Amino acid sequence: MSKTKKFLLTEKQMPTQWYNIIADMKNKPGVSISPRTKKPVTKDEMCMLFAEELVNQEMSTERYIDIPDQVQDLYKIWRSTPLVRAYELEKALDTPAKIYFKNESTSPAGSHKPNTAIPQAYYNYKQGIKCITTETGGGQWGSAISFASQFFDIDLKVFMVKVSYFQKPYRKLMMNAWGADVVPSPSTMTEAGRHALAKDPNCSGSLGLAISEAVELAVRNPETTKYTLGSVLNHVLLHQTIIGEEALMQMEMAGDMPDVVIGCFGGGSNFAGIGFPFLKKNLTEGTNIRVIAVEPSSCPKLTRGVFHYDYGDTEGLTPLMPMYTLGHNFQPADIHAGGLRYHGAGPIVSQLLKDGLIEAQAIPQLETFAAGMVFAKTEGIIPAPESTHAIAMAIREAKKAKEEGKSKTILFNLSGHGMIDMYAYEQYFAGNLQNYDLSDETIRQTVDELKTLIDL
Amino acid sequence: MSKTKKFLLTEKQMPTQWYNIIADMKNKPGVSISPRTKKPVTKDEMCMLFAEELVNQEMSTERYIDIPDQVQDLYKIWRSTPLVRAYELEKALDTPAKIYFKNESTSPAGSHKPNTAIPQAYYNYKQGIKCITTETGGGQWGSAISFASQFFDIDLKVFMVKVSYFQKPYRKLMMNAWGADVVPSPSTMTEAGRHALAKDPNCSGSLGLAISEAVELAVRNPETTKYTLGSVLNHVLLHQTIIGEEALMQMEMAGDMPDVVIGCFGGGSNFAGIGFPFLKKNLTEGTNIRVIAVEPSSCPKLTRGVFHYDYGDTEGLTPLMPMYTLGHNFQPADIHAGGLRYHGAGPIVSQLLKDGLIEAQAIPQLETFAAGMVFAKTEGIIPAPESTHAIAMAIREAKKAKEEGKSKTILFNLSGHGMIDMYAYEQYFAGNLQNYDLSDETIRQTVDELKTLIDL
Repeated sequence: MSKTKKFLLTEKQMPTQWYNIIADMKNKPGVSISPRTKKPVTKDEMCMLFAEELVNQEMSTERYIDIPDQVQDLYKIWRSTPLVRAYELEKALDTPAKIYFKNESTSPAGSHKPNTAIPQAYYNYKQGIKCITTETGGGQWGSAISFASQFFDIDLKVFMVKVSYFQKPYRKLMMNAWGADVVPSPSTMTEAGRHALAKDPNCSGSLGLAISEAVELAVRNPETTKYTLGSVLNHVLLHQTIIGEEALMQMEMAGDMPDVVIGCFGGGSNFAGIGFPFLKKNLTEGTNIRVIAVEPSSCPKLTRGVFHYDYGDTEGLTPLMPMYTLGHNFQPADIHAGGLRYHGAGPIVSQLLKDGLIEAQAIPQLETFAAGMVFAKTEGIIPAPESTHAIAMAIREAKKAKEEGKSKTILFNLSGHGMIDMYAYEQYFAGNLQNYDLSDETIRQTVDELKTLIDL
Repeated sequence: MSKTKKFLLTEKQMPTQWYNIIADMKNKPGVSISPRTKKPVTKDEMCMLFAEELVNQEMSTERYIDIPDQVQDLYKIWRSTPLVRAYELEKALDTPAKIYFKNESTSPAGSHKPNTAIPQAYYNYKQGIKCITTETGGGQWGSAISFASQFFDIDLKVFMVKVSYFQKPYRKLMMNAWGADVVPSPSTMTEAGRHALAKDPNCSGSLGLAISEAVELAVRNPETTKYTLGSVLNHVLLHQTIIGEEALMQMEMAGDMPDVVIGCFGGGSNFAGIGFPFLKKNLTEGTNIRVIAVEPSSCPKLTRGVFHYDYGDTEGLTPLMPMYTLGHNFQPADIHAGGLRYHGAGPIVSQLLKDGLIEAQAIPQLETFAAGMVFAKTEGIIPAPESTHAIAMAIREAKKAKEEGKSKTILFNLSGHGMIDMYAYEQYFAGNLQNYDLSDETIRQTVDELKTLIDL
C-alpha cells in the first residue's frame, strides 16, 4: 500500500505552454517547397489551407507558446493524464528496470490525438472558419477532430479511407455521434475522388487519396473552409508536447528521471509529444536521455528510408518537405497499426534523427501484439495496436537491463487503448497475422522515384 | 481558467473501506429463501456457490469493511475516478443548477463493474479457487470479471447470451484478450443448455438461461469452481460503494454537497455505489439528500413492479429474494441499455424503496438517447446507453430547477462510456429505436405468477 502507482497533476499544476523544440535545434528543419513554384512555401500559400494562427505556429521559432485559456479548459475534460509506474509489468519481466508509462488512452476519443485536435479547431473557430475538412485512415484522428470541432460548432467533413469506413464502423459512428459528416473516400464530391473512381469504380481508397480529397475541398473554398492534419507538421507536434511537459513534472514527483523515453512512430505526433520535452533537457541541460522512435518493420522510413524532399500525400498536392521517407508511392503492408502506415516522417523529427539526437528502431508485427498481450495481462489495459510498438520496445529495454544486471528507468507513451480495435486482436488470436520482411529492392523502387523530385 | 473542473483524490486519500448500508437500516432487507427447503438460505448453502468471504460480506451487518491491500493496489490502476463539474452541460441547459458527475467510465473495462470484479476474483483466489463461472448479457460484467480474473490466474468461463455473443464481438474479444473462455449460451456444456437446445436448436439465449448454465457448472464442482454475479447481491453493492465514498470526499473538496444523487438502475450495483454513501448522511446525520434510481420505462420494476419473493434467474435455480420485481418470466423489450434489462431489484434497494428512503423514476428510451447526445456534445464523452438514463434524469432535474428559478446541486454517476456500444447509437441515428409503452395487463401476467411462490 505504500507504493504510489499513479502520479497526477492538479489542474492548477498543468502546463500552460507548449514547447517548440525548433528554438533549441542547432540545425533547424529544412524549409518546405511549393510543388508549383519549386520555391519555399510562403505564409500566404500555407494560409490557403490552414488557419493563420496555426501557420504562425508552424513557422515559429519561439521556445514556448501559450496555450489559450479555452483550450486549457477543454484539455481539463481528461487532462492531466496519469503517469503510471508499471509495477506488475516489471514483476512479470523480472527486470531491475523501472518502467513508467504516460497513459494517453484516457481521452474521450481514446488516444492522444485530441491534444492537437482541440487547438486546431479552436484557432479555426477564432478565425471565423465554419467548415473543416480532414482525412482519416484507421479513425483515431477523425474521431479526435470530430470530438474537438463540436465544441466550436464547426462543420466537419471527414474523408475516411473506404476500406476502413466499412471495416471500422464503430470509429465512423463515434465521429457521427460528435456531429461529423463522414464520407467514404474516394467520393464523387471531388475531382480527385471522381478521377480515382473513373479509373476503378471499386477503388477501396488510400490515405494519400483521402488527403487529396480533403485538401481539394478546402482549397476550393478558402474563405470558409480550412484543412486540418493530425500528424507530421510542426504545429501538430508542438501541441502534443503537453504530454511530455506533464510527464517531466510527474517524473519529478516520482523522484525519478528516465534514461530512455519511447514513443511509437507514424508521422511523429505522439513520439514528439512524449519525447521533445525530454530532448529539451538534453539540448539545454546536457543530460543524455535516449529518445527512441519505434516504427513497424513493415513501414521502416526511419530505419531504412532516405532523407530527401518528398510529398506528404500520394497525389503530390502538399508541399515538398525534407524528411526520412520510403517515397510517397510506398504501399505499406496491411498491418493493424493503421496509424503507423505512413511513408514519411515529419521534418523536425527527420532533422533530429539525421543529427543523431534521437534513435529509431523497427519492430515486427507479431512481437508488438505479443507485447500488447503481456501489457493487458499485467497492467490491465488493452493497448491500441500502434501503442504496442512502444510497449515492445520498453520490454526489449527492460530485458536488456536484466541481461546486463543494470537498473534503468524507462518511460513510454501509451498513445491509445485498443477497445475500438478489437478486430485486430481477433486476427492475432486466430493466427492470421504475420511479419513482413521487406526486401531492399521493394524499398528501392519507391525511393528511386524521389530522384525526379527536387533534391536536398 | 480559475474554475476547477475535475476533483481528484491522491492515492493516499483513497477510501480504504467499503460502506455496508445494512448497518444503518432500521428495517433490514428480508432473508433469502432456499428454493428447495423453503427455509432461509444457510451460509453453507451459499458457500456452495460463492467464495466464503463473499458470503460473510453478504450476511454482514458491520458498518465498514476493510478493502484488502491487494484490492486497493489493483483499484489504483484507474481509481480514484474523477468527480467532474459539468459546466458545459449546465450552460447548454441554461440552468441555475450545478451539475456534477462521477466518471466511472475511466476503468480499463470502460465501466464501474471492475469495482466488484476485482474483490470477487481476489477472495476466490485467496480461497484457492481455480475456476470461476459467470454469465453476461451486454458484456460489461463479463469483460470486468475477465479483466479481474487474469490478475489472479483464475480460469474464467463466461456464458454469454448467444444473441449478444454474435452482435457484440468486441465485448467478447475484450474478454478473450484478458484470457477468458467465452461460451455462447445456450451451450451443450450443461444440462440447462442442452435442455434449451433440445426444445429449440436455434434458441438465441437469455440472461436467465446463462445464469442457470453458470450456476450449474459451479455447483457441479464446488471444491474448485465458484460462481460470480455482477449485481443484485449485497456483497456486490457493498464493493461499489467505493464510488460514493470517493464522491463524498470529492464533493467536500468542491465545497459543495448534492441535493439530488442519481444512478441508473439495472440490478442496483452502480446506483448503490453512488447512492449509499449519501444515504448514510441521511440515515446518520439527518440530511435530506434525494437519491433517485432511474430505470427504463420498458423494464419498470421499481415504479410498476410488486414487492414480493422472486427468483434471481428465469429457471428458478437461485434463492428466492424479497424484491421489487416484474416476475422472473418478464421479458423486457430489446432496448439497447442491456445492463438495465433485468426483472428484479436487489433486496437492499428494494427495502429502501419500500421504506421511502429512495425515489425511483422510469424514463423512455428515446429521451435517454437524446440526453446522451446532449452530454456527448457538451462534456465530450459518449456515454453507455445505461448511463444515459442517469443523464436524462439529471437534465430533468436541471430543467425543473430553471422553471422554479432555484439553484440546486445535482450529482449523477456516469457508469460507463459507449465506445463499445456504438451499434446502439447507429440504430438511434437511423431512427430505428422506439419507446415501449407497457400495458398494465402485460405486467400483471408475469407478476401474477409470483402468487404460486412463497409470500412475504
